[in-house]
Amino acid sequence: MEIKIMKNILDRNQNRANEVRSLMTEKNVTMVNIISSPGAGKTTLLERTLEELGDRFRIGVIEGDITTDRDAQRLKRFDIPIVMINTEGGCHLDSHSISKVLDLFELDNLDFLFVENVGNLICPSQFDLGETFKLAVVSTTEGDDKPAKYPMLFREAKAVLLNKIDLMPYTNFNIENFRSDLGKINAGVPLFETSFTRGDGLKDWFGWISRQVSGSL
Amino acid sequence: MEIKIMKNILDRNQNRANEVRSLMTEKNVTMVNIISSPGAGKTTLLERTLEELGDRFRIGVIEGDITTDRDAQRLKRFDIPIVMINTEGGCHLDSHSISKVLDLFELDNLDFLFVENVGNLICPSQFDLGETFKLAVVSTTEGDDKPAKYPMLFREAKAVLLNKIDLMPYTNFNIENFRSDLGKINAGVPLFETSFTRGDGLKDWFGWISRQVSGSL
Repeated sequence: MEIKIMKNILDRNQNRANEVRSLMTEKNVTMVNIISSPGAGKTTLLERTLEELGDRFRIGVIEGDITTDRDAQRLKRFDIPIVMINTEGGCHLDSHSISKVLDLFELDNLDFLFVENVGNLICPSQFDLGETFKLAVVSTTEGDDKPAKYPMLFREAKAVLLNKIDLMPYTNFNIENFRSDLGKINAGVPLFETSFTRGDGLKDWFGWISRQVSGSL
Repeated sequence: MEIKIMKNILDRNQNRANEVRSLMTEKNVTMVNIISSPGAGKTTLLERTLEELGDRFRIGVIEGDITTDRDAQRLKRFDIPIVMINTEGGCHLDSHSISKVLDLFELDNLDFLFVENVGNLICPSQFDLGETFKLAVVSTTEGDDKPAKYPMLFREAKAVLLNKIDLMPYTNFNIENFRSDLGKINAGVPLFETSFTRGDGLKDWFGWISRQVSGSL
């Protein structure tokens, strides 16, 4: 019973996601669905990326949050279109909520649409938003066992950012275990070992994300 | 439509949770539903608590995980009953899954039943398991904005453990902001500022949890 209901919900989500994806392709917009645990660094990643690439690319942002506008407030200093979706307790964004707000962007004038999903390693990876690709962000302070314990996201991600590499010396994080588990789940996936606060790994990230602009896919 | 279905699911969950709660009361078992983001320290909290209190109290553990038995393996060194529930992708435990495994414990011979929920700040707080109370674990490396951004859990928790206090100097975590936000959501809730690896705050935690044993409630 519940399985059938879940299938219906997912089917309807998939249909709308397919429409969103077609629209993004038509408009040459690269839509990036950013997924992580709470506090892994999604908003800080957007801040660093907008500081570095905001002049080179036309970037829009959708901020998914359960209840506050705190993340959107942090991005207000950038002169870009930002739309906030409050899920009112919901644990993930879905393609319907995305579809409804796309009218608020001038898609003909965008290269990238970054979607910061709700902080949650599980549910967001089960709902296709129509994104061009998913991006996984995980931090060393969460432990090296996260790819093995939450494989759905890591299996589907087009790239993985391992953040808070500056805090690794203070934890028992074993980077060989992390790389090995990730390799079993998604062999060859680009892995960026970063500190969004100290700057490690960001040059490689900026280079990689720049190459994902729609014309060059 | 989906709201009605969700209400049915939650109603059915609540009915079963009420049955579980009655059974725990009858058996004098304190059931603690431990909720946090991935990697905040739930399993390490159980390790420290079993090391300190394993001789004084009769403790059982239910380990909720999406796919692996890694957390349960970490607790195998203790001579206690442990039952693992794999949610097969599900983002939270529910009262039905708890109810089904209770037969595997000798409830007459337990003081505490600790339930380590799936690593997720959102969905687990929406499903009553029949627990005596919820416990929130959050770590400094997740940022000081977590109570404001994920209020459901922090509103319901009977106590909050702020872990990884040893890593605070390396982050921009503002403990005054954290305490202030938490106070607005759940005034007077006991807050333990801990490092499960270095030992900070554990003495207070052991004292508090010991007083939650059913006879002394």
